[in-house]
Formats: sequence, structure tokens, C-alpha cells
Amino acid sequence: MEQVSRFGAVELADFPPDLRERVSVIAERAGFVPNVFRGLARRPAELRAFLDYHDALMDSDEGLSRAERELIVVATSSANHCTYCIVAHGAILRIRARDPEIADRVAGNPWAAELNPRHRAIVDLALVIATRSAELTEHDLAGARAAGLSDDEIWDVGAITALFAMSNRLAHLMDLRPNAEFFTMGRAPR
Amino acid sequence: MEQVSRFGAVELADFPPDLRERVSVIAERAGFVPNVFRGLARRPAELRAFLDYHDALMDSDEGLSRAERELIVVATSSANHCTYCIVAHGAILRIRARDPEIADRVAGNPWAAELNPRHRAIVDLALVIATRSAELTEHDLAGARAAGLSDDEIWDVGAITALFAMSNRLAHLMDLRPNAEFFTMGRAPR
Amino acid sequence: MEQVSRFGAVELADFPPDLRERVSVIAERAGFVPNVFRGLARRPAELRAFLDYHDALMDSDEGLSRAERELIVVATSSANHCTYCIVAHGAILRIRARDPEIADRVAGNPWAAELNPRHRAIVDLALVIATRSAELTEHDLAGARAAGLSDDEIWDVGAITALFAMSNRLAHLMDLRPNAEFFTMGRAPR
Amino acid sequence: MEQVSRFGAVELADFPPDLRERVSVIAERAGFVPNVFRGLARRPAELRAFLDYHDALMDSDEGLSRAERELIVVATSSANHCTYCIVAHGAILRIRARDPEIADRVAGNPWAAELNPRHRAIVDLALVIATRSAELTEHDLAGARAAGLSDDEIWDVGAITALFAMSNRLAHLMDLRPNAEFFTMGRAPR
Amino acid sequence: MEQVSRFGAVELADFPPDLRERVSVIAERAGFVPNVFRGLARRPAELRAFLDYHDALMDSDEGLSRAERELIVVATSSANHCTYCIVAHGAILRIRARDPEIADRVAGNPWAAELNPRHRAIVDLALVIATRSAELTEHDLAGARAAGLSDDEIWDVGAITALFAMSNRLAHLMDLRPNAEFFTMGRAPR
Amino acid sequence: MEQVSRFGAVELADFPPDLRERVSVIAERAGFVPNVFRGLARRPAELRAFLDYHDALMDSDEGLSRAERELIVVATSSANHCTYCIVAHGAILRIRARDPEIADRVAGNPWAAELNPRHRAIVDLALVIATRSAELTEHDLAGARAAGLSDDEIWDVGAITALFAMSNRLAHLMDLRPNAEFFTMGRAPR
Repeated sequence: MEQVSRFGAVELADFPPDLRERVSVIAERAGFVPNVFRGLARRPAELRAFLDYHDALMDSDEGLSRAERELIVVATSSANHCTYCIVAHGAILRIRARDPEIADRVAGNPWAAELNPRHRAIVDLALVIATRSAELTEHDLAGARAAGLSDDEIWDVGAITALFAMSNRLAHLMDLRPNAEFFTMGRAPR
Repeated sequence: MEQVSRFGAVELADFPPDLRERVSVIAERAGFVPNVFRGLARRPAELRAFLDYHDALMDSDEGLSRAERELIVVATSSANHCTYCIVAHGAILRIRARDPEIADRVAGNPWAAELNPRHRAIVDLALVIATRSAELTEHDLAGARAAGLSDDEIWDVGAITALFAMSNRLAHLMDLRPNAEFFTMGRAPR
Repeated sequence: MEQVSRFGAVELADFPPDLRERVSVIAERAGFVPNVFRGLARRPAELRAFLDYHDALMDSDEGLSRAERELIVVATSSANHCTYCIVAHGAILRIRARDPEIADRVAGNPWAAELNPRHRAIVDLALVIATRSAELTEHDLAGARAAGLSDDEIWDVGAITALFAMSNRLAHLMDLRPNAEFFTMGRAPR
Repeated sequence: MEQVSRFGAVELADFPPDLRERVSVIAERAGFVPNVFRGLARRPAELRAFLDYHDALMDSDEGLSRAERELIVVATSSANHCTYCIVAHGAILRIRARDPEIADRVAGNPWAAELNPRHRAIVDLALVIATRSAELTEHDLAGARAAGLSDDEIWDVGAITALFAMSNRLAHLMDLRPNAEFFTMGRAPR
Repeated sequence: MEQVSRFGAVELADFPPDLRERVSVIAERAGFVPNVFRGLARRPAELRAFLDYHDALMDSDEGLSRAERELIVVATSSANHCTYCIVAHGAILRIRARDPEIADRVAGNPWAAELNPRHRAIVDLALVIATRSAELTEHDLAGARAAGLSDDEIWDVGAITALFAMSNRLAHLMDLRPNAEFFTMGRAPR
Repeated sequence: MEQVSRFGAVELADFPPDLRERVSVIAERAGFVPNVFRGLARRPAELRAFLDYHDALMDSDEGLSRAERELIVVATSSANHCTYCIVAHGAILRIRARDPEIADRVAGNPWAAELNPRHRAIVDLALVIATRSAELTEHDLAGARAAGLSDDEIWDVGAITALFAMSNRLAHLMDLRPNAEFFTMGRAPR
């Protein structure tokens, strides 16, 4: 059996009941248990907080669409060179955006991938916060506002980028491997 | 009244009841409401997950001591140039380590601050994960293990570093200002 | 019709006869004309030299295998964030290595992707030459030699990395877009 | 007795007479002998030149105020991660600026610390010269001039930054430790 | 006899006839065989492509002058710290530009060397492509166009920069040493 | 008349008497007044301290030879891209080392220029202090000691590097131009 995490993996059957139930819902929808849950389950309290944070920021179409949220994840995970997040969220982005090429184009070069002006502004702001957040200034926020982003949308861009600054590092810590299914999901042209 | 966050601040009285109760406990112990909570309360679900994640990783003396956990926060927040986290967790570090100089010495230069070999190994590993986690290799982990760190302690180093990679970026997003009290806490020599 | 290059594209029918013949062979094998040729054909003499250089280094199984040569291209193009080369040579790598995941794993994080020791040594040397070649020392070459690489293989690693240091910059200059076909080639598991 | 410098320290009594007299004046005012003098006294001719250079640039309120001069030192020493200069000149900055928080705020994040426009322009110019002086252009100087800085003030910003580019490296060379007194000076609110 | 390349050197007499003839023409004009040819001749097919690429881009006064082409080589080879290319093409630049100081001034600091606006725009664009081509945007091209560069001239700037991104890495791979003659060519004032 | 410094230049006749006398001695030996003095003379007290510091560190053959001291200046000024110091001290290095190529080889690539083990250790230590002194560790010093350097020699390497960290930034501040004479001094083979 292939490695999931360098610190081992927990089988879904061995999760605490609340987490088993919660992750089972995701697994049924996906058809498999994403490896990040089996790796993080080594620490149930941390997995619980991780899921809560994730759901608070990623499961919404208010302001930013779900596809835009995944766009931020793929762009910043590429800047951080996190294979798990690029591959897993790249799959979700392809599906949410109904575009089989978008994930590879954004992961290839998030700084220059062709995007509409709103998406370019979202990704530009996310990249500043991912790679040199100490230098974030009102000038960067003004760029986002000029593209029409509200304060709540700017918060979402920043908070999602921050959440995956954490996730990317957890994945690197675990040397986490993407499930085989993620590599091919959403690649059929629509 | 001084700025707390560029996106405004919520008064404790206006928090949802569960968060008000939870943050009140912290505020009573500290003597003031740390600004991070008033800034994040704009988003109760995110603040809830933040507190859960924080408590899961920072409120324990199993493996890493509480002082060692704060040491990681100060060192990596310095590498990320996050004033709020350096000042607030610097105060906690001074108290936990019973050392009025440690926070300024580690924040000044986390790469070379004089530390005992265990603490140096903890900080060295944390700095790799904070600043270039894609390059993390077994070689880095071997250095940590040679200093006596267990897998669980290595996980804690990595997970705390990851949590504050997020926190530092949230603080930069909010342009979060430290409460005046943090600057002077724990500075009297013991 | 979608953009090929920001400087326009030449139709195969309008290539000089020698180049039309040469690229036609490639196009027939692939089933389409890779966009790099249509973009570079703006300058026939440069395209001719490009093809010659490419063939001299990439069309050989002596020393380095063809799959190993593509591995170098994907790893260094990821370090350089070149979408065209990652996507196009990622497709070729999947086919040559008979591995549907290898390209995404190496492009995601070339520094830490799990590879056998020979491939890790090849990629490590290539990354030094791609990103900080002025600092290349005998120490780096010794690492490659310890993994069993001959002088001729080390030359190939360096020369292929150098060729794609050029190609990546040409692709960025042109804002070159990968053909749709490349995104899905070689993704079926074997 | 604690380490002053990795190359040892000279007692004030053992200084050459002219330096003993000169440093005694500083020591009487401060209440202690700053460690930098005891470390540099290993080389009297260098210490003499250091003091002369320091006095020529730091002991003046013409153009830049003394507090502004210390602001430059703290900001650039933070960019260079020099603990001695951050802690020692942070103390002086707190006193000169009559602000118990300014040093920790500027050292925490010199790029984004809230400052009035004149001080922001001073720090922005200083950071360019500290970290990437080869790229200094008329564009940077124009920013400083737009904030009202004269040529003489611009010279002072640059020359003070240059002097502490030297001092920071000397402190790193010596692994110089700040005197305990510096950590707490000027922290009482006014 | 001094080292030419760490992989040895081929004598001109031992070159394949076509390459011997071609390099002889250059050697007769220069008075010596430039070491790059003796180092690359280990791989005749690669040397052939290298010469073709070089001639296609460097032997022309259409659009960019020959001196401007050499200016790009010296500026980007300095950014890449390639001694062979700085010294050899610095010599050619001195001759082509009829200026004994230009090469040392541009190699010393390509970002700030005083140049007329057209040459400054050429060098600025070349430096972006040499050092961070993934971030190349229409904004950079607009700067070049504002200085009067045509699309063909912009292509030349980019393609020459790309060619020497390759050459610099080949020189580093070979640890290639400049011929003694290059150091002094073109230094007499005109 | 050509620019000396962007802040203007003082004629030797207008220097304060002590500085006029002191610089005249240098000028007579060189045959011209080095521009650095005419630029810095805008601030006599700073020029005086600069000359004192320079003489204390550069005018000695005790421990490090004069040529080794110049080697440090050229190597670190190249890392800092300071044209004035590379060109002026490159000339002095050629003369002191009686080697017409050494300056261009070291300035071209200080990290990999072929040097004997003692000189390589000197330059390696100097480059760490020039470019990332916060990370200087006992490990770096151990490398220098293994090459036979004494504590006094290590101090000289560090202090000369620190002095030119200052000088390079002053030259960038002034946009200081090298005198024409420096470009050609010491280029005749011995």
C-alpha cells in the first residue's frame, strides 16, 4: 500500500465517531477518502478545527464563488509548491469552473495565467499575501477594490490564502500524497 | 480610539454568546481583550475554528512545553515580520520561559539566537517550514531527531509553525495592532 | 480562435519547406501541431536551430533515458513556472515513463517529489543549474557522481536544463499557450 | 559572566586613554558600558573610526531629528536581523521619540509599520538602500523628495543606513549580545 | 596548459570538418580560438545548433544594432554571474560600442548603469526575462514599447536573453574560462 | 565634465586642509583624485572617519596580505553590484596580486572563481557576511579556521566586508562613477 503521510494514516473506521460521520459524507460524494483526512486524523482535535475552518471559508458562494475560492487555493499552493493541494484542489477547481485546463494553467504560472480582470485581481492579492505578506499595503488593497472586490471579498481572499499557507505546510510536514483519483477528475472537456 | 484592525473591531459584548464566554475567560486572565479576537470576531465561525486550532496546539505541556510552543511562534513570526504575533506571543514567551530577554533575542535573529541544542533544533526546523517548506527533506527531520525530538514533537513543531503561517497572514490582512499591555508584560527580571 | 503566442502564430502551410516537412513529421505522430512551432516559426532560422538543439539533446536513450530527459524538463520548467513546458513535456513524460502521476508530482514540488536515488540526483543537479548556476560547485557534481552519473550524463543534465532555461524564457516572451491535447495525454493508468 | 562577543571583550580600564575617556562619557550617561564598545575595543583604531563615524551621523538634529536617525537604525537593523542594534537602538528610539511602542512596531515589520508620511518615506528609502541598493533609482529618490526630504536629509538617510549595514555585520561577526539594560529602557508610557 | 572546461577541450584540428571551417573563420578574425568552441566541441551536434542560434540572433544590425545585442548579453550575464560571457562579450561590446568603459559599467550594475532611454528600456526588459520571466507582463512590454521598441526588437531582446540564459548555464556547467585575450580587447580609449 | 556623484563633487582645492593634505598623498601616488573622495568631501567629518576606517583595515600586511584584503572588497562588491568599488578596487587588486585577470574573474562570479583553498575560504566567509550575515554560524567560522585562518584574520575578513557593505551603499547613494584611469590600471600581463 502506498504512503499517505510520512507519519502514517488512520483508517476511516478508526476515526472518532463525529469525524467518521463527517468525513464519510465527503468520501461518499467523492468516491474515496481524501488522504488529507487520513493523515490529519492522527490528531482528532486538529482535524476537527481544520474541517471547521475549511467549511467556514470554502463552502459558500456568497461574495466569492466556490470556483473563485478554489482558484485562490490552486494559485497560492503553486507559489508554495504544495503537490497535494495543487492536485486535489486543482481537481475541484476544474469541476467548479467547468474548465479542464484552468488548474494546470494557474498552477503552471499563477503570476501570468490569463484570467479575467476580477480573477486576476483576486489571484494577484492572494499571491502577495502568500509570498510576502509583510509588505502588503493599502496599494495592494486598492488594486483589489478597483477590480470591484468588497471588503468581505478581500477578507475571503486573504483568509483562504492564510488557511492554505497552513495547509500547504501541513502537507509538506506529512509529505502528503494525493489520491490517484484527484489526478484525473474533471479533465473531460465540457 | 486606536485602530485594532483595518476591517474594524467587534466589542466583546457583541460577540455571539459562546465566543463571548470563551474570550471572557482569556480576557479575565490577561486583564484585557487581546485585539486578535476583536478583529477576527467579524467572522464568528472563523474565530471559533481559530480558537479550537489554537487550543489544540498551544495549551499543552505534553512533549513540547508551553514555553517551547511560544518559542516557535516568536521565531517564525519574526521570519514573517508579523508585529502582532511577535509582540503578543513575545509577552507570553517571556512569562512562560521566565526570561525577560528571550523574546527580543529570538525575534531579533531567530537563525542565530543562542539557545540550548534542543531549542535550537526546534527553531531550525520551524524556520525551514515557515520559509521554504517545499524543500523540507528527511535531512531536516534527521536533525530534529538527532536532538531528541519524537515524531509527536516534530508534528507539533510543524503544526504550530503552520498555524502561525496562517495567523501571521491574517494579522497582515487586518493590519492588526497589538494591545499596549503586551509590550511590557513579563519584562521584569526574575 | 485561441491565442497561440502574443506575437501571433504561423500556419504550418506557411512554414519554409524544410521546416514544414520537419514539423509535419512531429505533427503526424502527435496528431496536432504543437504551438511552440507555430509561435517560433515567426523566425525560421531560430526555429531551425531550436529543433536541432532539441533533437541533439532529447532524442536519445544513450546514457540518460528519454524519460529521464523529460523528467529534467518538467522539474526545471516548474522551478521556472513555465506553463507551456510543464504541460507539453509533462504529457511526454507521462507517456515515456508510463506513469500517469509523475508529471504532476514533479511539477508540484520538484525539490521533494519522491524519486529513486538516481532520478533524485538528476533532478537535484538540474535544479541547482536552473535556479542558481553561479553557485554550482564540485560538491554538487560529486553528489551526482555518487549516484552513478557519468560525465556524459552530467553534461546531459546540465545541457538539457540550459536548453529549457532558454525555452522557458521564449515561452514567457511569447505568452505561449499549450495545445488542448497536451493536458490529457498519457493520463490513463497502465 | 555572560558573553559579550565571540572574540572576547575588553574592560573599560584597559582601553587606550582617549577611548577610555570618550566611552566613559557615554557610560556615565547610560549607566553602563554598551557592549559594542567592549567588543570593538579589541581594535582601537577601528573603534576610534567607528565612534567618529557614528557621531558625525547620529549626534545631530539638523535636518533629520535624532529620533528620525534612530528610526532608520531600527528599521534597517530589523531588515538585517541584527539583535544588538535592534535592542540597543530600539531603547534609544523609545527615549528619543518618547514612544514606548515605536521600536517594537518598527522592528516587527518595518515595511508596514504605521508612520506619518515623512517617516514612512524615510523608512522606505532606507529599506531599499539596506536590502537592494544596486536597484536604487531616481524613482526612489523622487518618492523621498515628494515627502519633502532635502538632498541633505536624503544623504543622511542613505549614510545612516550604510553605517548600520556595517554595524549590523560587525555585530553578527562578533555575535554581540545586548546589555540587559537596553531591553527595558524607555518602556514606561509617557 | 590552463583549464578550458572542467570536461576537457577539443583542439580545432580535431573538430569535424564543417565546424573546423566555421570556427576557423571566427578564430582568424579574433586571432585565437574562443574557449567556448573548444569546450562545446565535445558535442558537435550541440555546437552546430549553438552556432546557428547565435548567428541568427547576434549577427544582424536590423532593428537592434550589434552593440545593443552585446549590451543585452553583458547585462544578463552579469545578473547570472557568468564570468566567461561577461569577459568575452564585454570585449565585443567595447569594440562594437566603441566605448572602453561600457562593459565594466553594465556588468558592475546592470540595474542602474547610466544608459540612454532606449538602452535602459532594452536592459530593463532583458533583466526581467533573465531573472523572473514568469512575472513578465504586458506592463513590462508597455515600458519597452514606450521607449520605441518594435515587436521585432522586443522579440530580439527576449530571444537574446533566452539564448544567454542557456549559454551562461553551459559555461557554469563547464566551469569555462575566458581566453586571456578577451580581458584586454577594446580597452584603449577612442 | 562628467558626473562624479549625483550630489555633486568637491574640488581638492576646496577640501579642509587636513583632508586636502591626506588625499593629495593618495592622488600623487595614483596620478589622479579618486572620485570617492570628491563625492564624500561634501561631508568632511564623514570623509575623515571613512579614511580612518579604511586605513585601519586596508593598509596592513599583518595576517591578511594587502592583496587578500582587496580580494575581499572585489568579491563582496560584486555580490552587492557596486560598480565603483569593483572597478576601483579591481584595479588595486590587479596590481597587488600581480595578476591582470583576477579582478574580472572574481567580480564575474565570486562564488565559483578558482582560488587557492585559503583564498576560497576567505571569499566564502566574506560572501556569507555580505549577503546573509544573520545566518552566520560557528559552522561558517569552522570552515575558515579549517583553512588556517586565525581569529584576527577572521575579524579582518568580517570587518573589511562590513566596511564595504557601507562603502557600496554610499556609492549607490551617490551614483558614484569610477575615474577613467581605474578601468585600465594593472591590465598589462607580468
